[in-house]
Amino acid sequence: MDILDFFTFEAAGMSIDELETPVPVIDIDIVDRNLRRWQERCDAIGIANRPHIKTHKLAALARYQIALGARGITVQKLGEAEVMAEAGIDDLLLTFNIVGASKLRRLAALAKRVKMTVVADNSVVVRGLGEAGRQAGADIGVLVECDTGGERNGAQSPEEALALAREIDATPGIAYKGLMTYPAPGMRRRMADFLVKARDLIDAAGLKTEVISIGGTPDMWSDEGIDVGTEYRAGTYIYCDRAEMAAGACDWDDCAFTVLSTVVSVPTADRALIDAGSKTLTMDLLGLEGYGVVHALGDAPVYAVNEEHGYLDISKLADKPAVGDLVRITPNHVCPVSNLFDRVVFIRGDKVLGAVKVDARGMVQ
Amino acid sequence: MDILDFFTFEAAGMSIDELETPVPVIDIDIVDRNLRRWQERCDAIGIANRPHIKTHKLAALARYQIALGARGITVQKLGEAEVMAEAGIDDLLLTFNIVGASKLRRLAALAKRVKMTVVADNSVVVRGLGEAGRQAGADIGVLVECDTGGERNGAQSPEEALALAREIDATPGIAYKGLMTYPAPGMRRRMADFLVKARDLIDAAGLKTEVISIGGTPDMWSDEGIDVGTEYRAGTYIYCDRAEMAAGACDWDDCAFTVLSTVVSVPTADRALIDAGSKTLTMDLLGLEGYGVVHALGDAPVYAVNEEHGYLDISKLADKPAVGDLVRITPNHVCPVSNLFDRVVFIRGDKVLGAVKVDARGMVQ
Repeated sequence: MDILDFFTFEAAGMSIDELETPVPVIDIDIVDRNLRRWQERCDAIGIANRPHIKTHKLAALARYQIALGARGITVQKLGEAEVMAEAGIDDLLLTFNIVGASKLRRLAALAKRVKMTVVADNSVVVRGLGEAGRQAGADIGVLVECDTGGERNGAQSPEEALALAREIDATPGIAYKGLMTYPAPGMRRRMADFLVKARDLIDAAGLKTEVISIGGTPDMWSDEGIDVGTEYRAGTYIYCDRAEMAAGACDWDDCAFTVLSTVVSVPTADRALIDAGSKTLTMDLLGLEGYGVVHALGDAPVYAVNEEHGYLDISKLADKPAVGDLVRITPNHVCPVSNLFDRVVFIRGDKVLGAVKVDARGMVQ
Repeated sequence: MDILDFFTFEAAGMSIDELETPVPVIDIDIVDRNLRRWQERCDAIGIANRPHIKTHKLAALARYQIALGARGITVQKLGEAEVMAEAGIDDLLLTFNIVGASKLRRLAALAKRVKMTVVADNSVVVRGLGEAGRQAGADIGVLVECDTGGERNGAQSPEEALALAREIDATPGIAYKGLMTYPAPGMRRRMADFLVKARDLIDAAGLKTEVISIGGTPDMWSDEGIDVGTEYRAGTYIYCDRAEMAAGACDWDDCAFTVLSTVVSVPTADRALIDAGSKTLTMDLLGLEGYGVVHALGDAPVYAVNEEHGYLDISKLADKPAVGDLVRITPNHVCPVSNLFDRVVFIRGDKVLGAVKVDARGMVQ
């Protein structure tokens, strides 16, 4: 199976230095390796792979993930689900509370076309999902979202998870399928304790927990508590970024995604200005310093950004970059960067394979 | 003149609580007042108004700004210029060094259609602009970008500005027109000293400085040093945001742009989760705490964000929001938020006027 078979590229055949900047360039061989390596681990430990497409938002890559063995995909918003269903993906988990009449109608329409599983962590959402399931004419599977240490949303205790499971079971139009959590990085033991307790309580109440959905790229290579999960949602692992390196989940060689940028001014020996600012790199810090680094220049940091300007620290470089030079920036957090661009460019080494549309860009509704 | 005459709305006639969230909602009457008030000040002090469209990126609003009396518009990237030229705007200042053969061809094509003025702060850019002007068959006006305290790019001294003015004057295809700076907030005196010295040196060399382009919303209401400018570029003033309030440039009543969001979970008495995260609000801090506030809820802060989740601090509220409630968030920095959405919605009070496409969204090239 060849990853290239999943793509139809636009504007192929250019070399990297003919591209207009700033633009994300993605090394397809690194993507391929990242995807295969993770699928192999999932197969080896016997956990279903359900990758989160919020990172890449590309139909081609979602289809390739499925072809490699993923059980289905994860999406965060209905707009992403609609795009992926249209692209032929037929097993989707949407890990966000769906609220509001208009959104519930969209969910019902999706549930008629593909296998949709959703989450709930409160009664208002459970009631709404029931209405959507009845509109769809078939039960929608629901996982109880659990807050296992991240202090985001989710049932706050195993007992609360049990109460929600019962409520789901008693609601026409939906079916209780299991538990879901986004485990806070480094808190897998606590996660496992919570989920086991919730599952056992729910078992004792006579309900079957078929799915325990866990996830997260930062801890994906850790074994601690992973056996509690029946499926794993990872997103960022496909491209990797500085934050995942800081978490120990990947290394430089695994970073497939860089932003190609042009040096437009070198006003002093200490700084160069590049054409990638916050509208390209975002201002996500995730505990890091600076807004990205140029690995090929000794990890020179982008120490400040305005909307269209990036400030590159060149003070430590013996060979200063010149106006017109291209640099490739590894971003802190790749997911929101990918979401800024209508198109990204795939490369193989220095050869441009071509551009593809970011199918689900901006689908926050 | 009625601002409504400049718009053709999609999906009009809904009420706010029928909108799908998250979505930017913009109060058209506040926009109108912000635009008129600034145009009146420009007229009163005799400075040309050349608003920066990077904030709104809407052809309709650019045309309205011109109709109210703006001299032309400012853009930051060629993609923005192309969209605005297509929309009939015929006098554009592009305040970013243009580098690279492909971009210079695009500039030449634009210069054939509309009056393009550009900037340069180094010899490589000057040479490139000369080629573009010769391709266009007519001189392109060039302003020397000056670094008057912001420590970004630009000529580092009035003497360097003079050298660049001479170089521009000696280059076929381009014409020296004047000076441009983005003054660092609070540094207008230093800006004025730099620009006056540069202008006098250039005068003495026999070159005429027709334009001195200054700008910035933070200091737009300050008189200090403003008389040095012949034209003013302000962008954010059209919508305003938390950062501009912190700078003293506006107040709550001037904030036209909020993000309508839905409460999707209230897991504890201290926090509510909303459907607007970093892919909606960005993580721009600009020295502020949190990622936006809900003014109607006692300025309750969005104290954390994930990509699609916002964490609202409700600990101080006597009446806690419920799942399904709508909240409106005033963002820290409105410009990159506007740039995340394909469409924004205009409102008048509680009435939805309709959606419009963000014409130049994502035009970073």
